[in-house]
Amino acid sequence: MKEKNVPEVVAKRLPRYYRYLDDLLKKNVYRISSGELSKKMGVTASQIRQDFNFFGGFGQQGYGYNVELLRNEIASILGIDKSVSTILIGAGYLGHALANHANFEKRGFQLIGIFDIDKDTIGTKIHGIEVYDNDRLKDFIKENKPEIAILTVPKKVANDIAKQLIDYGIKGIWNFSYAEIELDSDVPIENVHLSDSLMTLSYKIK
Amino acid sequence: MKEKNVPEVVAKRLPRYYRYLDDLLKKNVYRISSGELSKKMGVTASQIRQDFNFFGGFGQQGYGYNVELLRNEIASILGIDKSVSTILIGAGYLGHALANHANFEKRGFQLIGIFDIDKDTIGTKIHGIEVYDNDRLKDFIKENKPEIAILTVPKKVANDIAKQLIDYGIKGIWNFSYAEIELDSDVPIENVHLSDSLMTLSYKIK
Repeated sequence: MKEKNVPEVVAKRLPRYYRYLDDLLKKNVYRISSGELSKKMGVTASQIRQDFNFFGGFGQQGYGYNVELLRNEIASILGIDKSVSTILIGAGYLGHALANHANFEKRGFQLIGIFDIDKDTIGTKIHGIEVYDNDRLKDFIKENKPEIAILTVPKKVANDIAKQLIDYGIKGIWNFSYAEIELDSDVPIENVHLSDSLMTLSYKIK
Repeated sequence: MKEKNVPEVVAKRLPRYYRYLDDLLKKNVYRISSGELSKKMGVTASQIRQDFNFFGGFGQQGYGYNVELLRNEIASILGIDKSVSTILIGAGYLGHALANHANFEKRGFQLIGIFDIDKDTIGTKIHGIEVYDNDRLKDFIKENKPEIAILTVPKKVANDIAKQLIDYGIKGIWNFSYAEIELDSDVPIENVHLSDSLMTLSYKIK
């Protein structure tokens, strides 16, 4: 695989390709033309070819794409063909919702620990996974080497906890705390802005 | 305001512009050049000018944008300068998390009712808003005319409930149910795919 320097917008489109191809496979569709793929995804065919060129092509022009092969290649590019070890900090409603969200497992993310500061929550299990005291974060990360941390903590503590997580060796943060995390670090942080799509919807109903 | 036929990708960028301009205002920044805006948002300056042209410009080249004016214009385009009446169907963990999410109110979305089928949940309040029986949906929508419905119900009932909501007069659906809703209707449906950004993060940490 020749991965060139991939622009952010392309990286952001890959999960959609993956999701779409995975859905096709579930419907027993094994081959698709770039034209069809384009129509269904609302992206031009030339955009799709351009995107795939960043990863060395996947060739087969005129004959269409092999859906399974393409899905598996994209999974490998995304790094979700192997299990990605994940922890979750903040066992509130959103933390519960995410821990119970079966899709993450299907997509290769394995939740191995949940952390909170609430004494009543610590020691319980969510979706079969134990909730630990935040105090144990450092040791747990050292021992179990999770790669990704899901952050569902209150806004005012998000920055401090993110800093700790990075110091302890976390490789990426999926941030649901609605706080802009400002740290002097190369560790990627994906900020989730739920209200963006709600605003898009508002625009569309006008 | 001359609104042309706006492509989906531009409509999807507007909330980000709005959010970013709103943050600037909170930091008492009142004027910004398209160059700066471009750098901070990771979008080219020409892209920004092109996007704004769909809405008649906002002019002022060379002198920079008036942040407050621009934010207010975008809010008006998004339709969030007025209160958007909203209901939520499905008072599970995710429903609770969303109902408690103060940002929606700040962005003009007013939650006026929550619906569930669970007898123990019906009659309680979440974030001060009463939970009603799903059976009351039809009458409630007729009386109160909410525009948007947030769907946080199990996958297997999502399609049926969406159909009902549209029949009862809902104008747009914000769908968190991970089901592809397939209906013969023009009512816009925004599907939220949380795992997309998790996959992007996985890609970035590789």
